[in-house]
Amino acid sequence: MPTYSAPSDHVLFLLRDVLGYERYANLPGFADAPLDLVEAVLSEAGRFCEEVLQPLNRTGDVQGCTRHDDGSVTTPDGFKDAYRTYAEAGWVGLAADPAHGGQGLPYTLAAILNEFVSSANMAWGMYTGLAQGAISAITLHGSDEQKALYLPKLVSGEWTGTMNLTEPHCGTDLGLIKTKAVPAGDGSYAITGQKIFISAGEHDLTPNIVHLVLARIEGAPDGTKGLSLFVAPKFLPDESGEVGERNAISCGSLETKMGIHGNATCVMNYDGATGWLVGEPEKGLRAMFTMMNEARLGVAAQGLALAEVAYQNAAVYARERRQGRALSGAAEPDAAADPILVHPDVRRTLMSIRAFNEAARALFVWAALKADIAHKSQDADDRLAADDALGLFTPVLKGVLSDKGFENTVQAQQVFGGHGYIAEHGMEQFVRDARIAMIYEGANGIQALDLVGRKLPKDGGRAMNAFFNEVAGFVKAHEKDEALAPFVAPLTAGLEHLRQATMWLMNNAMAKPDNAGAASTDYMHLFGLVALGYMWAQMAKAATEKLADGADGREAFFETRLTLGRFFMERTMPETAAHLARISSGADTLMALPAEAF
Amino acid sequence: MPTYSAPSDHVLFLLRDVLGYERYANLPGFADAPLDLVEAVLSEAGRFCEEVLQPLNRTGDVQGCTRHDDGSVTTPDGFKDAYRTYAEAGWVGLAADPAHGGQGLPYTLAAILNEFVSSANMAWGMYTGLAQGAISAITLHGSDEQKALYLPKLVSGEWTGTMNLTEPHCGTDLGLIKTKAVPAGDGSYAITGQKIFISAGEHDLTPNIVHLVLARIEGAPDGTKGLSLFVAPKFLPDESGEVGERNAISCGSLETKMGIHGNATCVMNYDGATGWLVGEPEKGLRAMFTMMNEARLGVAAQGLALAEVAYQNAAVYARERRQGRALSGAAEPDAAADPILVHPDVRRTLMSIRAFNEAARALFVWAALKADIAHKSQDADDRLAADDALGLFTPVLKGVLSDKGFENTVQAQQVFGGHGYIAEHGMEQFVRDARIAMIYEGANGIQALDLVGRKLPKDGGRAMNAFFNEVAGFVKAHEKDEALAPFVAPLTAGLEHLRQATMWLMNNAMAKPDNAGAASTDYMHLFGLVALGYMWAQMAKAATEKLADGADGREAFFETRLTLGRFFMERTMPETAAHLARISSGADTLMALPAEAF
Repeated sequence: MPTYSAPSDHVLFLLRDVLGYERYANLPGFADAPLDLVEAVLSEAGRFCEEVLQPLNRTGDVQGCTRHDDGSVTTPDGFKDAYRTYAEAGWVGLAADPAHGGQGLPYTLAAILNEFVSSANMAWGMYTGLAQGAISAITLHGSDEQKALYLPKLVSGEWTGTMNLTEPHCGTDLGLIKTKAVPAGDGSYAITGQKIFISAGEHDLTPNIVHLVLARIEGAPDGTKGLSLFVAPKFLPDESGEVGERNAISCGSLETKMGIHGNATCVMNYDGATGWLVGEPEKGLRAMFTMMNEARLGVAAQGLALAEVAYQNAAVYARERRQGRALSGAAEPDAAADPILVHPDVRRTLMSIRAFNEAARALFVWAALKADIAHKSQDADDRLAADDALGLFTPVLKGVLSDKGFENTVQAQQVFGGHGYIAEHGMEQFVRDARIAMIYEGANGIQALDLVGRKLPKDGGRAMNAFFNEVAGFVKAHEKDEALAPFVAPLTAGLEHLRQATMWLMNNAMAKPDNAGAASTDYMHLFGLVALGYMWAQMAKAATEKLADGADGREAFFETRLTLGRFFMERTMPETAAHLARISSGADTLMALPAEAF
Repeated sequence: MPTYSAPSDHVLFLLRDVLGYERYANLPGFADAPLDLVEAVLSEAGRFCEEVLQPLNRTGDVQGCTRHDDGSVTTPDGFKDAYRTYAEAGWVGLAADPAHGGQGLPYTLAAILNEFVSSANMAWGMYTGLAQGAISAITLHGSDEQKALYLPKLVSGEWTGTMNLTEPHCGTDLGLIKTKAVPAGDGSYAITGQKIFISAGEHDLTPNIVHLVLARIEGAPDGTKGLSLFVAPKFLPDESGEVGERNAISCGSLETKMGIHGNATCVMNYDGATGWLVGEPEKGLRAMFTMMNEARLGVAAQGLALAEVAYQNAAVYARERRQGRALSGAAEPDAAADPILVHPDVRRTLMSIRAFNEAARALFVWAALKADIAHKSQDADDRLAADDALGLFTPVLKGVLSDKGFENTVQAQQVFGGHGYIAEHGMEQFVRDARIAMIYEGANGIQALDLVGRKLPKDGGRAMNAFFNEVAGFVKAHEKDEALAPFVAPLTAGLEHLRQATMWLMNNAMAKPDNAGAASTDYMHLFGLVALGYMWAQMAKAATEKLADGADGREAFFETRLTLGRFFMERTMPETAAHLARISSGADTLMALPAEAF
């Protein structure tokens, strides 16, 4: 059976020593969450994930969800109790506005909690994760009445929420959505259509489910411009705002899928269901993107989370499993064989996962802090800069952390040999679960296009330039620091490759957009590598300083960071050159093949 | 539902135009198999795979195998009938010695058939694939009596075979094997122990199963040197060689696993089972390696096979699924959206899979021809050179084709978006099935160590030097050929990286073996890339010549090869530099982390 231990230690290092969490005490919510409180919160959250959620993970996979003839759905044993405990402890509303019953703590903490929960039980976490998106969408776009009606229930976890976008014929291309909304004359709409792949669309965790649905008001134009967002609860609230009449929304079937069996992936049928417009008509996509962007960061966390728990279990196995002898001679000659951790290739596998994970966590927490600043800072310039960075890095985080998170989960499974392929050790479930993160909330190819086609050129490249300048500033400030040379030199090379790739895009993609499309995935990964390399350089700087200042008994912790960072620089950063070469090869060869030749 | 079309077209191009199949007409079996016969055989085999095996693939996954209380195992519906048809058509003995009822055709054909079968139904193919290994082991190491008793039954497919190596506490490190063999006084041995992960260990396809079992004769030394190979059939042959008394061998349980559900992965219990020594006592590992090496090529074929069928289905989907518009403007303005094949990133995904697959198939068929030469040539030098090449490339093929085959299967799944994650389209099954190829028959880390630690230095690097010289000779012969410049230039760069990496190993691994271990996986992939690049250069040369000679209406076929080859050179070959950088970074950072820090 797999185990999990929440990496609070690393998170606290990031907040305290690397990302300067304490600088943000002036932001609302941060004053209430000094580092000792953060430590207590993480410790409690970690314990819940380790002791309650993780043991349910295998159950969820084996049992899956069950749809009954009446369309109701039962979640796996234990999911409901765990959800109740979680909601009652106030975790759902950790970062929500106190005006709606939330705790008002930094979003950053909620984002970190999301990683922990996903490591422990990704399928379970999706029930509460999707509610976060609904809370954001209603908070930003809902009417006062809608806020009053739905937010307290969502924030307390009494009800959950969903996102209804995809239809059988369209996922990426939402402009093709057919679901119709007809004004009912009383301010509500009658919604009719079919939505598919709706995570947590139906379940037994809560007495009501608040669906946010993209649909086209009768007569609205074709394409994305004709889409509006509606709120359509499973049960219509009665006059006191409690569960009332059943709405005409039903789960038609559950998908049989590769993983996340504990989460109900539903076909949802809207048969003249009652819904209310959220925000302005025909501005639905914009409102939905509020949920999508947050959900994309959540998916980034899932990619990291699965690689983290898979790594932890692989490390335990590598310390315990004995096969063969160290190449340099038996490490434990009295035993029949050495632990496989003596083998350099096993170490290479483990360290490449972990070196990635720690940089990924740094980048993720860095981006979460940007979200807090973007939403809460009193300073307009700070808000703008943070919003720029968040927009630029959302596709990078989603795409890179889920792509690499999956690869790394597979590599962790590999450490187990044949034992990784059988269900018993739980590694193959991690792989199956991790796989979805590359796909949902915008498949990673879409993330890459969003980065190259939208986020990069936005506002004359302002966000990108700010990031390049920040990294270049760091490099310049430390180029003569010998202790940091193993970090600064590869980062400089990576940044140069990124600059060249960006220049190549500027010179070649305007006149020929296919060159952008052909470069997009490589560009996203190149961008990610440089950002992760930058995170390692900062972590190395912090670790070096702590060691110089006297590490207070934590020398081993900081030395480990320096070793992992060097590993990343030596073994992962060299990929930037290959990405640049591929980007510069352009679209000609790609586009030369006629469709029938595929 | 997925479909499959056997790539006979590409195979015939390889045999006819690239690898000079007709030059080998002097080898036994080749004279009986001129290209028109090969074409007929491939066409018939392809039809069987497409029409009989492929439709059973999903059934096999959903139903899996069932173990009954008496230890018997039922295979999925249709498996038994398909097996009977296959055996009766003589496919099992396609390349086996006519003296034992085989057809005596080239091994190369059987290897190609193996790819087709694995694409169509990998789990099914393993039942007959493992019999091939048993045939080889008994042919090379068995007594005349054993040959007479077992080979006709195995070659005809009347019985199947298995390999029994792994035990709960040891897979890679066979020296730890505990299974005991005690002389029974009548020439037989009583075998006692437990074997796990035994593919096709028990099933209902045939009335008997011939187990080849590694065990330690009582009193034999510890470690691999004390291991002997035994043949232990499920039913002991009676005096007429037919199924007689039940042996004390039973399937204790079936593993619940990630994929290949249609194949029974058994825990096998030997309770004083009767077995007979195959070959000399305490030479069991050598004899087992006869099976292992063949099995490793079979696994290489599986990696390719799954990526091939996954590619084919992704290509169909990309032509049919409509989402969004071409970046350069609507390709089909009258339709609601363009096929996703217009998107450069979708093309990139598909072409990278296919460009890899075609080179992988070339390398695989090239290696299979080496096996034919090594076993059948009249010329001792030719035999030696072919055996060298086969030994060198077996770990490369197994490791690279299964690693990349899995990655590519995942990428093909990605083309389907959310539809790739649900079971309906069959893509997620391909991924789950492909995953095992990286693990079994020696996990890929072991392949890499075999390459770096054993195959490379063997005989003073003779095999490696021969390959380097062959590629360098090709480069030299074509360095001024302008038409081939897009192929020769990147191949030259890749070869240079491989030379540098090899030199680095020679200079650094002797004194410090951890440097070899730390470099091994990257070296294996670097080696693979250069070999695949060399295959593309040869395919490009052949295609260019055919186009110059008048391609006889097949211009599009040859143009497609040139485009795919350019793609490989532009997009895949740049990875050689990253591998070299990682290799040269050495083991120091890897070994610096203490065990408790993982």
